[in-house]
Amino acid sequence: MDYNSIFEEIKREINLDVKHGKVADYIPELAHVDPNKFGISLKCMDGQSFSMGDADEKFSAQSITKVFSLALAMNHFGQKVWSRMDVEPSGTSFNSLVLLEYEQGIPRNPFINSGALVIADMLVEKLEDPKGEFLEFVRNMTGSRDIDYNYKVANSERDHGFRNRAMANMLKSFGNIKGDVEDVLDFYFHQCSIEMSCKQLADAFMVFSNKGSMLGTKEKIITKQQSQRINALMLTCGFYDEAGEFAFRVGLPGKSGVGGGIAAVYPSEYSVAVWSPRLNKLGNSVLGMKTLELLTTKTGMGIF
Amino acid sequence: MDYNSIFEEIKREINLDVKHGKVADYIPELAHVDPNKFGISLKCMDGQSFSMGDADEKFSAQSITKVFSLALAMNHFGQKVWSRMDVEPSGTSFNSLVLLEYEQGIPRNPFINSGALVIADMLVEKLEDPKGEFLEFVRNMTGSRDIDYNYKVANSERDHGFRNRAMANMLKSFGNIKGDVEDVLDFYFHQCSIEMSCKQLADAFMVFSNKGSMLGTKEKIITKQQSQRINALMLTCGFYDEAGEFAFRVGLPGKSGVGGGIAAVYPSEYSVAVWSPRLNKLGNSVLGMKTLELLTTKTGMGIF
Amino acid sequence: MDYNSIFEEIKREINLDVKHGKVADYIPELAHVDPNKFGISLKCMDGQSFSMGDADEKFSAQSITKVFSLALAMNHFGQKVWSRMDVEPSGTSFNSLVLLEYEQGIPRNPFINSGALVIADMLVEKLEDPKGEFLEFVRNMTGSRDIDYNYKVANSERDHGFRNRAMANMLKSFGNIKGDVEDVLDFYFHQCSIEMSCKQLADAFMVFSNKGSMLGTKEKIITKQQSQRINALMLTCGFYDEAGEFAFRVGLPGKSGVGGGIAAVYPSEYSVAVWSPRLNKLGNSVLGMKTLELLTTKTGMGIF
Amino acid sequence: MDYNSIFEEIKREINLDVKHGKVADYIPELAHVDPNKFGISLKCMDGQSFSMGDADEKFSAQSITKVFSLALAMNHFGQKVWSRMDVEPSGTSFNSLVLLEYEQGIPRNPFINSGALVIADMLVEKLEDPKGEFLEFVRNMTGSRDIDYNYKVANSERDHGFRNRAMANMLKSFGNIKGDVEDVLDFYFHQCSIEMSCKQLADAFMVFSNKGSMLGTKEKIITKQQSQRINALMLTCGFYDEAGEFAFRVGLPGKSGVGGGIAAVYPSEYSVAVWSPRLNKLGNSVLGMKTLELLTTKTGMGIF
Repeated sequence: MDYNSIFEEIKREINLDVKHGKVADYIPELAHVDPNKFGISLKCMDGQSFSMGDADEKFSAQSITKVFSLALAMNHFGQKVWSRMDVEPSGTSFNSLVLLEYEQGIPRNPFINSGALVIADMLVEKLEDPKGEFLEFVRNMTGSRDIDYNYKVANSERDHGFRNRAMANMLKSFGNIKGDVEDVLDFYFHQCSIEMSCKQLADAFMVFSNKGSMLGTKEKIITKQQSQRINALMLTCGFYDEAGEFAFRVGLPGKSGVGGGIAAVYPSEYSVAVWSPRLNKLGNSVLGMKTLELLTTKTGMGIF
Repeated sequence: MDYNSIFEEIKREINLDVKHGKVADYIPELAHVDPNKFGISLKCMDGQSFSMGDADEKFSAQSITKVFSLALAMNHFGQKVWSRMDVEPSGTSFNSLVLLEYEQGIPRNPFINSGALVIADMLVEKLEDPKGEFLEFVRNMTGSRDIDYNYKVANSERDHGFRNRAMANMLKSFGNIKGDVEDVLDFYFHQCSIEMSCKQLADAFMVFSNKGSMLGTKEKIITKQQSQRINALMLTCGFYDEAGEFAFRVGLPGKSGVGGGIAAVYPSEYSVAVWSPRLNKLGNSVLGMKTLELLTTKTGMGIF
Repeated sequence: MDYNSIFEEIKREINLDVKHGKVADYIPELAHVDPNKFGISLKCMDGQSFSMGDADEKFSAQSITKVFSLALAMNHFGQKVWSRMDVEPSGTSFNSLVLLEYEQGIPRNPFINSGALVIADMLVEKLEDPKGEFLEFVRNMTGSRDIDYNYKVANSERDHGFRNRAMANMLKSFGNIKGDVEDVLDFYFHQCSIEMSCKQLADAFMVFSNKGSMLGTKEKIITKQQSQRINALMLTCGFYDEAGEFAFRVGLPGKSGVGGGIAAVYPSEYSVAVWSPRLNKLGNSVLGMKTLELLTTKTGMGIF
Repeated sequence: MDYNSIFEEIKREINLDVKHGKVADYIPELAHVDPNKFGISLKCMDGQSFSMGDADEKFSAQSITKVFSLALAMNHFGQKVWSRMDVEPSGTSFNSLVLLEYEQGIPRNPFINSGALVIADMLVEKLEDPKGEFLEFVRNMTGSRDIDYNYKVANSERDHGFRNRAMANMLKSFGNIKGDVEDVLDFYFHQCSIEMSCKQLADAFMVFSNKGSMLGTKEKIITKQQSQRINALMLTCGFYDEAGEFAFRVGLPGKSGVGGGIAAVYPSEYSVAVWSPRLNKLGNSVLGMKTLELLTTKTGMGIF
């Protein structure tokens, strides 16, 4: 398929001049990004890559990293992950404490903040050097050493992340965080601060398109079944309270972040990442969603 | 693929003697069913059918019919359907009034009862003979005249369906039911009472596997895009508060009913229906879910 | 105490020309009232009455009648009333279904609509001629035959009271309404439609100031303990989600209605009723609350 | 009134041998108390005191201290207190985060933990030596220097109070805590750790019976109106989710603590404190409530 010309078509149609949405500003560090950035990168099973725009510029991956931490946790803990959280869509906004209280400290899924905090706790408990090993894991999946934490962003989250601190203490009160709350938050804030480009995200997400293994080296990162399950989770829970909308309009498993990125996969076909910092009210990239909707519509490809 | 021998394998593994779960008994008419019934039927894109057990015995389709009423409504109203309801998973049990109140009368999706009632209202308003035309629609999709309402079940729902009556009045109070509440409930209770066999359900659901068209006659029931969207909705919202679990374990779009049936589709590959009346606590067939999980695991086929 | 001059003072201070708030308009019949009506009537233990303004004009008592139906139910059922509802403030708006669902059909108290519907069910089940006997009960407490239902208002509620119908069906689904839902609603809508003047309300509420007995005839309507408990309930639950505000600012047990009336008691001292149809956002009379606040402030009397 | 013989009667009737309820054990320090302790102390407007049992033994006052911190805050901030919290009953359990999220960081009242934390924040911000000045305030109201913090209990709360830490961070995320979260928690945990005897609590609460002033010295601690409002708040919000039950059965403004104490006032008549460590499921002293119910029943005195 000639993705380059499809990208050009999409670019014309989405009209980059229309400036709906708003850059995330709850952390000063995130608010500085140029709202007009736009990039897309798609990687096929045959190893070919297609990119457009700012596809090589790194941005804050934020919640997209929850897919990586889940993969690492499944790798280490297997099915045990699910004794501490569920796999159901949340039906309320991503940082809601309501459901958490109602369900006695069991997060609905690993992609809402409470679930990601429990995953963080598991990794902090298990790994000798949690931050170091997590970074290595992401670098390895991506096949690139040029990925790192943004310590300014992580520190900014530490100083202003009261809602996440509330959530972590709540989980602790229910016994679903075992370690020290501040240690878990420290890992989590660093995890979210990782910066990657569209190109790197597409490279890393190829693992979920390729049944759990690296495309080139064939290294098995997770099992085929784990990869399928992560895809199922991305489809049902990957977009906060807009997972249904994304499945409905785009029809691919994916995960968004408040940095404006979205990574998605078409299993056994391709992985794709798009970046545009302006977010809609539910925290997802306006143009990112539109771009991926056009991609699956124009190619006529999609899991449904 | 030799589905017959896969069915035999599954049958051995699920161990039909283990009797977990409980037949739905909130309507006396449903409680009379033999809990040991078990049937499965799968239809491939090439027209071949594979069946086992009680695949030709009709049972109460119940919520599975919500997929048919949605298809009929999309057919008549197109995108307008979505001005009166959302496409998001509900995150609470299927008959909850809480979310409905919180979201001011806008149902989360067309597969929870409140959403299905709004769909019913649309059809009652639009169609000259709602019950007659809906039955014709289902018969046509199935390619069989041998499908009918069970009036005893419908009347039983009418006399005991207080929760649905509460929901319908609530929707009316928010202005999201236009017609007479009792007329809408009458249609809805009849819709749910339709009886179909696994074989018939697999025939009917082939439309959603086949991009909206009948397999044999090529008659277009809904557009390709509508079919994809219904599949996306089934995946994210088809199993009450277990949609994530089903996506996670089975990985197919599907819809369950309290009669013990589940119909599912593997787009462009097959449609499948299974029936076992014992339900888990969340209202889904225990063996039905297990059977489909084994099916996708054994065949190695699934959308993720 | 010279209540006449206190009334005059209050009238000057509340400034009747300021027209905050809005007449209830969810029933056309209620929307027709002149918003500038204002009346107050206070009755002392020595039998003296003080009135001002439109104190003799009848208006729709609405939720104030919940105190009468509770008294009649306590009279007939004693402590058994509390096996079907609680005595706690609700913490959400008066017609919320959320709490009802969360608490499995047990209303928080008899003054929210769900609780009043259960009371209505008890009376409908127990009394031979529920509407007739209830009217007699109110007439007797008031010492006046000149009190009646407003059938137009009752019918208007029947035709538009979808939220109450939702609530009643919900209660029925939990088994906390025994009778026919429409019979219970018919009683409830008539109960709420009773029209009384401030003078009559003050007369009737004297029973709660006078430990359960009529002032003149000494007829015991309810026991002293029942009277005290009704007062406790009025204080904690009498003003929808503003019970705390009323206790805080006024400091008397009382009950408001969307017709703009408020009846209150100072135990062993006086009963008082005020009427001004403009309501605040929480459904309580703006000037009614202000008037009673000034009354207890100026007289220096209050239960706290 | 001969309170001594009434106390004796009550003691016989409540049957101290019946051991319903359970000592609070969420902090090890609180779990060590002898569950069979029982004391009561009542102070009249004429200065007379009546005591029975362990009335002079100090215990952990816990949430009863919220009345003192509110009084001190009203003293310093007057009406401004109410710009940061409401005066309504909460309708859910005392440490619920649900309502707090729903109401955007505005606590329902100053007696649930979230409200008390906002009060703590106000005092920490305003006072030069918050812990020192608060202790002086309580000692002064009580007329006794023999009152102090229990630092072990305060430290235990600091190390295990994850739910309160969650709440405080949540309030901070909504901007309704201005100071440092840990500073506010430090003050709050110390405040709750204060130990007082029934006798001392009755002495201190006399201020709320005596319209805001000390009985002997006539020193004005708060205004008459502030005292009345605190009483109104105690009545509607003083017993977590059992405020209605206490008003219904006892009919006095009061405040309970998980140390097993209850302090209550009959305005212009008496103040009373009772202690029995076994708590019911809602966190209130079983025998404490029973004792006060018998007190108002036997004396025939109560505000309703």
